[in-house]
Amino acid sequence: MGTLTLLASLSPSAYADEGQWQPHQLPQLKNELKRIGITIPAEKLADLSKHPMSAMVSLGGCSASFVSNAGLVVTNHHCAYGAVQRNSSATRNLIANGFLAKTRAEELPAGSSERIYVTDKVETVTEKVVGSLSARLSGRERNQMIQNRIKSLIAECEQDKAYRCSVPSFHRGLEYYRIRQLMIRDVRLVYAPSDKIGNFGGDIDNFEWPRHTGDFSFLRAYVGKDGRPADPSPDNVPYQSKDFLVVSAEGIKNGDPILLAGYPGRTSRYKLPTEIRSARDISYPRRVAESQADLATIAKATQDNPESVVRYASVAKSINNGMKKTQGLLDGFSRKDIAAIKDVQDAEFRRWFADHSEAADKNLLAELDAVIASDISLSEQEFAMNVALHSDLFRSARSLYRLALERKKPDADRESGYQDRDVPFLKARLSRLEQSFVSSVDQARWQAAMQRYQQLPAEVHPAGLDALLPSTDAIAGIYAQTRLATTTQRLAWLDKDADSIVQSDDAFLKLAVNVYQIGDAMEKRRKDIDGNLERIIPRYMQAFINFKKTQGKPVYPDANSTLRVTFGTVAPYSPRDGISKGPFTTVEGVIEKNTGKEPFAVPQAVQDAVREKRYGVFRDKVLGTVPVNFLSSADTTGGNSGSAVMNKQGELIGLNFDSTYESITKDWYFDSAITRAIHVDIRYMLWVMKEIDHADNLLKEMTIKYPH
Amino acid sequence: MGTLTLLASLSPSAYADEGQWQPHQLPQLKNELKRIGITIPAEKLADLSKHPMSAMVSLGGCSASFVSNAGLVVTNHHCAYGAVQRNSSATRNLIANGFLAKTRAEELPAGSSERIYVTDKVETVTEKVVGSLSARLSGRERNQMIQNRIKSLIAECEQDKAYRCSVPSFHRGLEYYRIRQLMIRDVRLVYAPSDKIGNFGGDIDNFEWPRHTGDFSFLRAYVGKDGRPADPSPDNVPYQSKDFLVVSAEGIKNGDPILLAGYPGRTSRYKLPTEIRSARDISYPRRVAESQADLATIAKATQDNPESVVRYASVAKSINNGMKKTQGLLDGFSRKDIAAIKDVQDAEFRRWFADHSEAADKNLLAELDAVIASDISLSEQEFAMNVALHSDLFRSARSLYRLALERKKPDADRESGYQDRDVPFLKARLSRLEQSFVSSVDQARWQAAMQRYQQLPAEVHPAGLDALLPSTDAIAGIYAQTRLATTTQRLAWLDKDADSIVQSDDAFLKLAVNVYQIGDAMEKRRKDIDGNLERIIPRYMQAFINFKKTQGKPVYPDANSTLRVTFGTVAPYSPRDGISKGPFTTVEGVIEKNTGKEPFAVPQAVQDAVREKRYGVFRDKVLGTVPVNFLSSADTTGGNSGSAVMNKQGELIGLNFDSTYESITKDWYFDSAITRAIHVDIRYMLWVMKEIDHADNLLKEMTIKYPH
Repeated sequence: MGTLTLLASLSPSAYADEGQWQPHQLPQLKNELKRIGITIPAEKLADLSKHPMSAMVSLGGCSASFVSNAGLVVTNHHCAYGAVQRNSSATRNLIANGFLAKTRAEELPAGSSERIYVTDKVETVTEKVVGSLSARLSGRERNQMIQNRIKSLIAECEQDKAYRCSVPSFHRGLEYYRIRQLMIRDVRLVYAPSDKIGNFGGDIDNFEWPRHTGDFSFLRAYVGKDGRPADPSPDNVPYQSKDFLVVSAEGIKNGDPILLAGYPGRTSRYKLPTEIRSARDISYPRRVAESQADLATIAKATQDNPESVVRYASVAKSINNGMKKTQGLLDGFSRKDIAAIKDVQDAEFRRWFADHSEAADKNLLAELDAVIASDISLSEQEFAMNVALHSDLFRSARSLYRLALERKKPDADRESGYQDRDVPFLKARLSRLEQSFVSSVDQARWQAAMQRYQQLPAEVHPAGLDALLPSTDAIAGIYAQTRLATTTQRLAWLDKDADSIVQSDDAFLKLAVNVYQIGDAMEKRRKDIDGNLERIIPRYMQAFINFKKTQGKPVYPDANSTLRVTFGTVAPYSPRDGISKGPFTTVEGVIEKNTGKEPFAVPQAVQDAVREKRYGVFRDKVLGTVPVNFLSSADTTGGNSGSAVMNKQGELIGLNFDSTYESITKDWYFDSAITRAIHVDIRYMLWVMKEIDHADNLLKEMTIKYPH
Repeated sequence: MGTLTLLASLSPSAYADEGQWQPHQLPQLKNELKRIGITIPAEKLADLSKHPMSAMVSLGGCSASFVSNAGLVVTNHHCAYGAVQRNSSATRNLIANGFLAKTRAEELPAGSSERIYVTDKVETVTEKVVGSLSARLSGRERNQMIQNRIKSLIAECEQDKAYRCSVPSFHRGLEYYRIRQLMIRDVRLVYAPSDKIGNFGGDIDNFEWPRHTGDFSFLRAYVGKDGRPADPSPDNVPYQSKDFLVVSAEGIKNGDPILLAGYPGRTSRYKLPTEIRSARDISYPRRVAESQADLATIAKATQDNPESVVRYASVAKSINNGMKKTQGLLDGFSRKDIAAIKDVQDAEFRRWFADHSEAADKNLLAELDAVIASDISLSEQEFAMNVALHSDLFRSARSLYRLALERKKPDADRESGYQDRDVPFLKARLSRLEQSFVSSVDQARWQAAMQRYQQLPAEVHPAGLDALLPSTDAIAGIYAQTRLATTTQRLAWLDKDADSIVQSDDAFLKLAVNVYQIGDAMEKRRKDIDGNLERIIPRYMQAFINFKKTQGKPVYPDANSTLRVTFGTVAPYSPRDGISKGPFTTVEGVIEKNTGKEPFAVPQAVQDAVREKRYGVFRDKVLGTVPVNFLSSADTTGGNSGSAVMNKQGELIGLNFDSTYESITKDWYFDSAITRAIHVDIRYMLWVMKEIDHADNLLKEMTIKYPH
């Protein structure tokens, strides 16, 4: 059977793989799950209190899962990277050498801002959020009402300090759910392989296939002796996880079904064609140019100072990552005319809508188009504003002044992000800045950004801002004068009131006070537009869902960092006629990439084990060797990093960590033929743990099914 | 079944695919042929007078085959390119538009130098060439004796002017065969698709996969009314080919066996490790640098003159092609340490030899190493000499003077290449130069080459040459003075004697006379070394063949432009872990590559036919569309262009035209896992003929088996 046949025969099932489903939606997809071979009943998957969903956790930005009843959590190496970095020093380089706690006592504090969130309750609160809102409210008033209601729903939920709650909107505001998560705040680093395994391929291989990254690490959740979340303390004990995943080393093969659960961040699958065109033609090209320029500035400003290079390594990595993603979207847009595809779908919907809408909805689509247009226009000004104020110290000063202003109000009335509950996060952010900040580099970045801001079209310059900005020549003086570059000074302002800040002679605080009104005005416009979007888009989405219902198709909401389930099959793909990629890579491929230099330096122990073919039980019968990474057709996005990849029985067979470059456009449009997520095969993880790092204690702690 | 499995399961058969066999060797491979599924008996394939081998022809540098009993020949588009070009004019662009003779009367003269050679007799003449040569002969004497014997064997054979004969050496001089070929010298162009099909992808796709090139054309052999070869004449009639291939449109699929017959040019499979190291470390890098520099010079010298660009297009293409091949070899050497592999094989042989050699062979390997060392050293001087004299006019002048000198001797004693039989070829070459020559460009190339020559290490400068070369500044004057740039003037010297040339005041002829002694001295050294190689290498090869015999393995000789048969299977390959390439591309892939610009401009008719899925009987059942190119594991090299690719029954299913980039090292070492030849699928050819070019007359003339 030829490669192409293979792909052809896979596409029918691959076609069903679109969808980041809310667990409660899964019973609607019962037949689909059964058809691809998932044996766990859909009803069970829908219940967050039952296995396997109760084993899924969030790290806030990353996904993870429990793999023992003693709070052992497995996630990606890049998700635990901060914890590894924080515990590294010049004399003890855990990044390069890896780290393994052989006993619980050796486990290291992951850092004060690390959290493990266990989703334990999801309630519908749509009526409470948007019920009985007068149609006569302005956009801003409406937005304010909704925000207030959400805040009070959250406050009510967070009365028990063990929990963190949120009320995200689904279907662009059609539905709201209140989500309660147990927030574990003593997190420890248990095991991370060397970055020569965990970050093998580095930025070069990011978004690429073939891939050979052992992107996994282990953390552990600790709680107070009472079993409830507690501040980090040596007295804490491992969290007794109610549930955990069984690990299956029995292996999977091409075409096998997989389940994937995690916390995907953001998608834009229901955007209108105009929104796609605006991103494609204006905002994304601008963003890529901005990132490129900023990276060049960082490179130049740090070039003679190795310490500065280190400080900005993760900043550059993050910009690079974002840029590669945006560029990937642009490449995808130019490869496939997604706007045109959406045009067809949109026209089809509008035709249906013309025939089926009620009188009250007569003007809906015209209103929708108008509010989307104003949203696009404001977004470009917001982008320009960010370019103009592109300085970490300026950003810190603005946060400090804003916090002081908000503090004048009762807690419940404050802007989300500036309530008492948010202060520890703000503090952590202001404190953490020192790890990735050098004053001269920040200055160079801002100077360069100001020059770029001047090049942006006049219509995107926020009204009044230009007059308040310093000249490029004055920037050096501002950095010479400010004290905010010192962490203690920065943190000291956290407790000061607004008047003290207004009276301060600190150059950045003065600037923050000066530009406040501009930012505030833009925020008000944003709220007005958001309020209008919140009013109109849910009606549009409801109509769209009704339309899809006539075709017998359930609709999943865009990703919003809440727990979702997706499913698919292990599958290769054809990026071009005559080429097939995946679905597996092998340890021999790791050796093939070895250059001896980062990010392709293979540890000697790995080289030896592969040369001697010490594959043990992790040898795949079909491949004849140990698989490293594999591809599946599951529907993922950022935030799904670390997500459990499970076999049909819900056993852990891998971790999601990336997707292919051709898949990047999936955030806008899911093209089943080419969209593939990249997973690390559990057998590689277990092989590294056994053969390379001798993590026998963890292998023993987990429940592992070995092939017979 | 996974992609990797697929490859793994293919490797056993792929391993058997090395070998460019002399037809008479095939009975030794009987079981192997049967095992992969070839149903034609090996004995039949060994007989050049029988089908299908009697349908194979050579175009001199390319391979082809008869596909009707009226002399219709199919070969690659790039092999018939000269014929298409010669018949093109500003008002009638056959290159871009393609050409189809709807009747025999419309068929166009392919050009006076085009030939079709039909191998009709192969005799062993080893004893006649190297029998009873005294051991006391010097290398040069020995070489001279062999050359004289070969010349007389050829002269005897060519008494019938209808034939061209050759006595190539096999196994580096161990065996000699006299090959007689009917030489048909009235060749006409019958059909060539547009270069948008025939050269789709151009130089960019050269050596690349995925590939989508319709690299095919048709010629016809014409002979005198008496059925014997004749000079081109309107009175000639189509040659009644004794045999021709049946065309099968029934299709092949992944894993199917194929046979391939043709005239591979040169391979170096039996080189010693020192020879590989010398190529890898010195001569190939030097060659690549030389080509790069020369291409840059041509580009610069032609940049302001579109006509010059056209004149040098094929020169640049040929340099580019050679460079890409040499660079591919270097890349291959750095990917796989072929020298180290050969070290192991060589050591294994030397161990065996130490135990099994006779007393007379005691010093054989030491002698071998010594003569190889002197060969390598002289080769580098020869290369340097070519750099120093890198001018088309200088080369022409040297040929003219050499011819005049040789003519002083009886024909039989003259150097091969300067006998009466060679004069028409020399004349054609001197005449054809005008198509790819511009005096100012030639001058620029020589000036640049002279500067590069000065940079080469002193030890490779031929003794005495430097003093005779003009200064770079003097070169412009030489071009201003010479008359050789004019074709008629160049040709006029063909009939002059040596004294006239010595007395000529033409700057290039004077230079040619001046450097003659240097070239002559080098040639004598070359003959001495060649004579020694001819004495020693055959003994080494005989020992090597004996050694292989102990392992039960037959040994095929290196390619030497004689008729060979290779076999293999349709097979994808994995260039890197996690990626699979091939084995098929499709017409959809042609559209995928369409940029509207050369070399990726897809003709509108092709776009329309694919959009409307007008696949007809050429639709492959597995692929669901028309295949364009495919890969096989057959063992090919340059000269195999246009070779018939046949199914197990010997029916034509495609034409060989290229190999993948990763395969380039096969000229030195056949790595079964990655070596793949690229073929155009007969179904694409037939589809283009039917749907695009409406070549119904040819479809009718051929015998085609359509799928039922």
